[in-house]
Amino acid sequence: MTQASDLSVIAARLFDTVAAMGLDTAGVSRPAFSPVETQVLEYLRAEAEQAGLVTRYDQGQNLIMSLPEDAAADRYVLIGSHVDSVPMGGNFDGLAGVVAGMLCLLRARQEGRGFARPVKVIAMRGEESAWFGPCYIASKCLMGTLTPAELEARHKGDGRSLRTHMRDLGIDTDRIGAGAPLMDQAEILEYIELHIEQGPLLIGKDMPAAIVSGIRGNFRHKSVKCIGEAGHSGAVPRAFRRDPVLAMADLLSRLDESWLSILQKGDDLVLTSGVVHTDQASNAMSRIPDQVTFSLDIRSQSADVLAGMRRLLADEMAQISRARKVRFERDTENATAPALMDPKLVNALCAAMERIGQEPLIMASGGGHDAAVFANAGVPSAMVFVRNRNGSHNPQEAMEIEDFIVGMSIIFEYLCAEGL
Amino acid sequence: MTQASDLSVIAARLFDTVAAMGLDTAGVSRPAFSPVETQVLEYLRAEAEQAGLVTRYDQGQNLIMSLPEDAAADRYVLIGSHVDSVPMGGNFDGLAGVVAGMLCLLRARQEGRGFARPVKVIAMRGEESAWFGPCYIASKCLMGTLTPAELEARHKGDGRSLRTHMRDLGIDTDRIGAGAPLMDQAEILEYIELHIEQGPLLIGKDMPAAIVSGIRGNFRHKSVKCIGEAGHSGAVPRAFRRDPVLAMADLLSRLDESWLSILQKGDDLVLTSGVVHTDQASNAMSRIPDQVTFSLDIRSQSADVLAGMRRLLADEMAQISRARKVRFERDTENATAPALMDPKLVNALCAAMERIGQEPLIMASGGGHDAAVFANAGVPSAMVFVRNRNGSHNPQEAMEIEDFIVGMSIIFEYLCAEGL
Repeated sequence: MTQASDLSVIAARLFDTVAAMGLDTAGVSRPAFSPVETQVLEYLRAEAEQAGLVTRYDQGQNLIMSLPEDAAADRYVLIGSHVDSVPMGGNFDGLAGVVAGMLCLLRARQEGRGFARPVKVIAMRGEESAWFGPCYIASKCLMGTLTPAELEARHKGDGRSLRTHMRDLGIDTDRIGAGAPLMDQAEILEYIELHIEQGPLLIGKDMPAAIVSGIRGNFRHKSVKCIGEAGHSGAVPRAFRRDPVLAMADLLSRLDESWLSILQKGDDLVLTSGVVHTDQASNAMSRIPDQVTFSLDIRSQSADVLAGMRRLLADEMAQISRARKVRFERDTENATAPALMDPKLVNALCAAMERIGQEPLIMASGGGHDAAVFANAGVPSAMVFVRNRNGSHNPQEAMEIEDFIVGMSIIFEYLCAEGL
Repeated sequence: MTQASDLSVIAARLFDTVAAMGLDTAGVSRPAFSPVETQVLEYLRAEAEQAGLVTRYDQGQNLIMSLPEDAAADRYVLIGSHVDSVPMGGNFDGLAGVVAGMLCLLRARQEGRGFARPVKVIAMRGEESAWFGPCYIASKCLMGTLTPAELEARHKGDGRSLRTHMRDLGIDTDRIGAGAPLMDQAEILEYIELHIEQGPLLIGKDMPAAIVSGIRGNFRHKSVKCIGEAGHSGAVPRAFRRDPVLAMADLLSRLDESWLSILQKGDDLVLTSGVVHTDQASNAMSRIPDQVTFSLDIRSQSADVLAGMRRLLADEMAQISRARKVRFERDTENATAPALMDPKLVNALCAAMERIGQEPLIMASGGGHDAAVFANAGVPSAMVFVRNRNGSHNPQEAMEIEDFIVGMSIIFEYLCAEGL
């Protein structure tokens, strides 16, 4: 039987080699649909072939790997994630899920064990929104849900469209543009994705891994303007003021209070205003500002909670506008529906987690993942989160290989034992 | 008897001619201790001499004007204000008080009336903090309260020190540096300053003028940092967050609530956070920011209220720091003591206001003025505010000459009738 230590060595080699291909001044940069991404897939393909796996590229130029006996299977469990990264990001976001799938295949081969059902591993291209704007690009193409507008999105660096970048890789963008899926969804029995946790919950709980119950949806505003009236900070009495900063503070405090009471009812919610600024050209310590601009990012696993928050936001803004004689202007809302993981699959993964000696834990995913695309297309999907220090999308990401092996082993245990 | 319409014509000519000397791309710019300022004083001197007044420059190179019979008086009522402006400011802030004083002299001369006590009018140089940082420069030099650090402050444009700029005008900066007053305070019986209101109270009340009860003191922080911890906006549960923006919103909302209850007790207070920003290099819609920076400007006529607010601010910051696991860092506090106007003088000006047929009104001054320096040096001082649209320190300042004549007439009436 293959030792966990051997798998750790293989995993470390794969991670390190891929990291070296995209090294940036800080962290790694693996742009979506770029030559670096192709180089990574080619390297993983070579490693897989050398270990006796069968590989091919699919219609979206994603890499598919399997045991030789599963290569021709027309119904299979799909394991995977993406290999691109954000600019100057960490090495594990995405890549860990691909390597986990590969290691499941290697381990089955080395241990001479078979899976209960055929298994394929997919190393997908572009998932990060940082390069073109749209997220989940590769999985949306597979499921036929990339919109025409997304296909024409411009690359933040070279300004060329996503369509052009994909066509350069030999992908049939006319088919994508027509909304035709690049993959027959009926082939996929289940989709399972391992990913580093992007929050601190597992660090806080001192646990190596968890099963994801659902992926939070969101509605977001890049820019909410609160418009009041400028004035002398000392000379305008309170009753005459139309202070947008105090109005914004009032709004955020009210949302914060509602957040707490929603959590106390047992509902899921997170709420962030990440960007706040008064007008740099005209703001001054001794001037009531005429306006302040801030972002809002509101996420929940529950579509009902999101709808309730949308109403609450509108109500609070209306109330505050009247009370403080200010005006709120929101840019177009950007929304993503929550994606529920398949409860049966979640339970089965929890059982596998228990069987390998780990206390099972279920948690929500705050970040979005390819699994949301598969789940919302109707594929029973689930995710395994692995403990990770310092969040994701930054060079300080820190996943321990030991924890990664736990996460990978949960999936392996499930794939071998299901139906027993 | 001189008609108000004649005085209006003279006032308009003086205002227009001075405005033309400092025209900027928007509004007027009359830098403190600059050749433009000198040109304005020279022009006013010529106008005064031509009208039969006696003029001279004092030790601070401020222009002193009087009726011939008062020129040698060693005890006198001083009427005045400053002639500098902020960059791209309005024409009336400061200048109106100087012109009002001149018009009192002209009117007395034209009507053949004498003042109850000798009167001198002072057109002071730099009062605005916009050029060097320190405010009330000329009046502080007269009273001997300019600090050595203020004397070395650098000009925002050319980087040369205030000392150098003053020395170029022939002012004895060694004497100022030693803290010696440039004027014998015992000579000044009273100081009276007319100024445009910098807030909207008179516009709101539809009244042309008011008597000032006191000048708000303040304590201010150019930069308060709230430091939390960055994180993924979707992935960090509420209990794990250290969100500086929500902490700031909480603080500002608490201060705002206290403000309301302080006003309800009948105390005086205004409170402004005019500059707010997250870190532009790292902030993002989907990132809990690691910090936010904001300014605080807290003003009151009451030193006790200011002291109470200082304690409240510290208490609230401490509470919020504990509750939200954030940290507040304040830069060095900048404070100015409130200046009470002389109650007897305020009452006498109110009586004069009533005698000229205006309903008397008493209000606080939110902005700082040279009168604060004289008052805090022990000179019985008072101010007359004139209705002004759109605040001050901007090109949209809008004082009607008619209202100005009312303000000037209050002072004239007081100067003629006092002691009767």
